[in-house]
Formats: sequence, structure tokens, C-alpha cells
Amino acid sequence: MIKVAVDAMGGDYAPVEMVAGAVDAVNANKDIKVLLVGQEKVVSEELKKHTYKKEQIEIVNATEVIKTEEPPVNAIRKKKDSSIVVGMNLVKNKEADAFVSAGSSGAILVGGQVLVGRIKGVERPPLAPLIPTEKGVSLLIDCGANVDARPSHLVQFARMGSIYMEHVVGIKNPRVAIVNIGAEEEKGNALVKETFPLLKECEDINFIGSIEAREIPHGGADVIVCEAFVGNVILKLYEGVGATLLSMVKAGMMESLRSKIGALLVKPALKKTLKSFDASQYGGAPLLGLKGLVVKTHGNSKALEVRNSILQCVTFKEQKINEKIRESLTEGKSE
Amino acid sequence: MIKVAVDAMGGDYAPVEMVAGAVDAVNANKDIKVLLVGQEKVVSEELKKHTYKKEQIEIVNATEVIKTEEPPVNAIRKKKDSSIVVGMNLVKNKEADAFVSAGSSGAILVGGQVLVGRIKGVERPPLAPLIPTEKGVSLLIDCGANVDARPSHLVQFARMGSIYMEHVVGIKNPRVAIVNIGAEEEKGNALVKETFPLLKECEDINFIGSIEAREIPHGGADVIVCEAFVGNVILKLYEGVGATLLSMVKAGMMESLRSKIGALLVKPALKKTLKSFDASQYGGAPLLGLKGLVVKTHGNSKALEVRNSILQCVTFKEQKINEKIRESLTEGKSE
Repeated sequence: MIKVAVDAMGGDYAPVEMVAGAVDAVNANKDIKVLLVGQEKVVSEELKKHTYKKEQIEIVNATEVIKTEEPPVNAIRKKKDSSIVVGMNLVKNKEADAFVSAGSSGAILVGGQVLVGRIKGVERPPLAPLIPTEKGVSLLIDCGANVDARPSHLVQFARMGSIYMEHVVGIKNPRVAIVNIGAEEEKGNALVKETFPLLKECEDINFIGSIEAREIPHGGADVIVCEAFVGNVILKLYEGVGATLLSMVKAGMMESLRSKIGALLVKPALKKTLKSFDASQYGGAPLLGLKGLVVKTHGNSKALEVRNSILQCVTFKEQKINEKIRESLTEGKSE
Repeated sequence: MIKVAVDAMGGDYAPVEMVAGAVDAVNANKDIKVLLVGQEKVVSEELKKHTYKKEQIEIVNATEVIKTEEPPVNAIRKKKDSSIVVGMNLVKNKEADAFVSAGSSGAILVGGQVLVGRIKGVERPPLAPLIPTEKGVSLLIDCGANVDARPSHLVQFARMGSIYMEHVVGIKNPRVAIVNIGAEEEKGNALVKETFPLLKECEDINFIGSIEAREIPHGGADVIVCEAFVGNVILKLYEGVGATLLSMVKAGMMESLRSKIGALLVKPALKKTLKSFDASQYGGAPLLGLKGLVVKTHGNSKALEVRNSILQCVTFKEQKINEKIRESLTEGKSE
């Protein structure tokens, strides 16, 4: 039985979509137990609307809620009975294997480090979302709060990301690349120039060199290593350009009567194709390198993403990802 | 009469498209004289195919060509008779007001600094392409080779970019923002945190604060200030996500007979809408802060982009941009 704590109060559509996602997950896999963390009355009211096996979902009361705009460090320190702090503590105390939340990114990043704690040897835990590409998905690591990272951090990101892609996402011998402004080894800023030779020396990853941002959507690498500021820019620009272009395509189709008729005809086929470019179906972003698993889903997560994030925790646990990360970093040290 | 030197040998479609663009520009404006720099025989053969006023185009012989893959510093030093070096020297010696090239970015950046030289007070000349947005265009400054910039550089980028957008592109009181990973002032990496208060103090720009990458395609600011590594990632990801999504839309439309018929109907309207998201119509990227104007066009420039880049040089000269930059930086110093 794998136990996943789910933040019932975090996200734009909490508790409705969080609870619905939890129910969908337990109905999809009988080996999961979800601990729904949140205000007991609110959560139980919501749960009543669903059908599921009672022994697979339990409510864990947490009276407080951390809001997105609250300063994270303060929020984690002060709101001891918030759904994020209570959920993280369940992981810390081994009462849950994982914690899934659509709440404040800052609070989740801080809480992960402070409450759950890092695996010995991990310098910084990276946040690693899957981003859609023409060929499937790539792991973008790091998009967290670790700005101004050092080369040794990026090497760890590469190792952890490679393990995740191979064993959770199922990409054999994943191609690892570092985000750069040119394909040649001598290009880049100081951080990339220092990190590049270190990645080349890593025998446990399939390092293919630099990747220019242009190649990311084409699926040029499976694990995209970068410092968090750059990762954040990539992640958000991805969303921004995608949203803008699609809204322009839609507006273009509404231009004339002729194009409106055409739009009706292309709609079903187009919807199917573009669905593969929708990040929400791939589940949330793991915060890697922690003693337990913490998964951050989008703030606007609906039930599907919540469900998939919970199911992803099962693979993470079954594949013993944290044991593999621990081994990899120890090997890295003794090389 | 404004004299524009054009690199006839640089770019994927040289000399054909470079020459065609030059002819289109002089035919559009009788006050331009183009100096076509390149191998005399090749260029004159190409010119023969066109109709134009003989006194508006002159060929300047340059026997060598710098290739994209050549190390820039070396190429500029060794190939004294290359189209890039000869063209830059025309600007240096005041025989031309501007130089337009689709050739090696590296060589153009190095040549601009070494041959044309910086305006007194300019610490680093930024490369500033216009990027398409939902609302029109924004200036992305810097996308050049100045990685690991310092706060004072970014402040100069903001000033120069603001002048360019106001007087060349015609955006009154342009909104200036710095790329960041959150909207709050305390967010960001060390560079952004140091630069933010300096930008707030600038009285000669309309600084609106941070911009998250997601808001760039929506036209959230007119001048997008960032360090060159980040700028390069933004520019290339813009192209990459756009190209990927449009090819997916096209593929989606070819899925079934029904969608194929629909595609025929929506095509004209869609083409018109998406044209506004095509960077090539806005002309090339100026390398700002040099004693003369240097414009880098895309490597795959066609005649339209070359033509527009040449016409853009006229506005740059007429609006006395370099005088304005010189004044702004002197004022900035005495504040």
C-alpha cells in the first residue's frame, strides 16, 4: 500500500478538483491510500459527492491554509496547522510516502527543504516539471527557487533528472543536455562553461552536450539541465507563447464566414493534436532529492492532473527513485 | 542622402536575397544609397537581374567571406578583405551611415566593437531584436554576446532600448520591464535584485517593474531588459515553440478528409493572422551604442527583411538615435 498525502486546500480549484483527483486515483489503483489534508468539514462535505472504497481515503485535519501571496518562509514557520505543513510532516514522519499540492510554490519549496529534508549529499533539491515536446516530454530541471546555482548543483540535477526520466517516465538511457546559447563547448556564460566539462566526465549519464532553446520544443533532449532562473523563463515562456499562438489561431479562424465553417471541420482533429502539447496531463513536478517525495502540481490543476500526480508517486516509490539518487550521488563522490 | 552598406555575401540566401532586398529598399526610398559589399563579379551578375536607379546602388569589392562557423575574433582579425570587415570600415570611416548583414552573429558583434567602436560612455553594446507579440512588437535587449552582464550594463540597455522604441519604432513613452521569475521586487537572482532599484531611479525611462516570461508574448512591456544568456534563450525558444505549435496545427489539420476540407477554408484567414507573428517583417536587430549603426538580420533573411532593415537605418539616422543615446548616458552620469 502506497500512502499519498494530498493538499485538499491548495490551488485555484481546491477543494473540488483536489478531492475529485484523489477519488479518481484510488479508483484507478487499489494499492493507493490517499490522506486528504485540509479543513475536515469542508473536505468531508466534498468527499460525500463521490463513490470510492472508504479504506482508500482518509481525512487528516489541518485548520489553516497558506495563501499564494504569503511570504513562504514565514508561512511555513507560523502556520503549523496548515495543509502544507501538516502534509509535509506526514512525509517526514513516514506516515505518508509522498505529498501532492497545488498550493503556494514558495511554501512547497521551503517546506520540502525545511520539513521533509534533503537526502544526504544532495546540495539543492531541484523542481523538475515535464514539458511537452513534438516527440513526447522532456524534464526541465531546475525550475525551483535555487537561482544562482553552482556547477556542482547542476551536475546533481543532471544525475537526478536522468534517474527520474529513466525509471519514472520510462525513457531508456535518457539524453541529458545543458541549456546554452550555442552548440559549441566554448560558448556560454561562466556557469555553463564550468559545468560542461563536469557533465562530460559523468559516466552514469548520457550527456549529449549543449542544447539551444530553439531545440527544446522539438524534443532535442530528454533531460534539460539549467539554473533555476533560466528554467523558470523557459517554463513560463513555453506557456506564454503557446497560449498566445493558439488564441491567435482561434481568432484567425473566426475572421470570416468561410473560415468559421472551416474551423468547425478542423476542430476535432486539431483538439486531439494539441492535447499532446498540454502539460496538465503529465502530472505535477517532483521536487527531487528530498527524503520523501513532494510533487507540485499547477496552481490551476484540475482532477486529471491531480490524479496523474498521485499515480506518478506510485511509480516513484516502486522504482525506489530515492535509493537510486542516494547511490548515484555516493558513487559520484567516490569517483 | 543616407548611405547604407549591405553585406551581399552573408546569410543563407546571399547574394540573391541580399541584392533583391537592397534593390527593393532603394526603389522604396529615393534618399537611400546602398553600398553592396562583396565579391564584385558575383554581386554585379546578380544586380543585372534588377531594375533600379544606377546612382542609388554602388558595389564595393570585398574578396573574402567570413563563414558562420569561424571563430569570430580570429575571422575579424585575419580576413581584412571580408564583406563584414570592409562594410564595418565603411561605417568607421563615415563613408556609410550604417551596415546591414545577415552573416555570422559572432563576427558582427566582435566587428561592431572592434572596428566601428563604442559611443563614449557605453559599457557594452547590446543586440536588440524586435519580437512579435499579441499587441505588436517588443524590443528584447540584450541578445548579444555580453553574457554575465553587470547591473550598470542593464541600466544602459534600458536607456538605449527606450530611446530606440520611442524614436525608431514610434512607441510613445515605452514601458520598460526587467525579466524576472516573479512580479515582486524581492524576487530574482543577484543580478536582477541589484538592477531593479537602479532602474527604479532612472527618471528618463518609464520603468514598470518585473516581467515574467509568460507575459512577454502578451505584450506586457515594450522594452524587455535582460542579460544576454537569458535574452538568447527567450529569442530562440520563441522561435522554437512557435514553429513546433504551427507544425502541429498543420499536421492536425491533415488528420482526416473532414479536417483537410476545413483546412482549405481556414487557410487564408489563418495566414493573415499568423503573419503578424512573423519576426522577419520587422527588420533586423540593431547593435546599439556603436559610433555608427550596425544591423544584424536573421541568417535566413529574405529580401523583405533586408529591405526593411535598410529602411529602418533611415529612421535611425533621421531621429539622431546615437546623439540621443550619447545625451542620455551623459545625463545618467551627472544625476
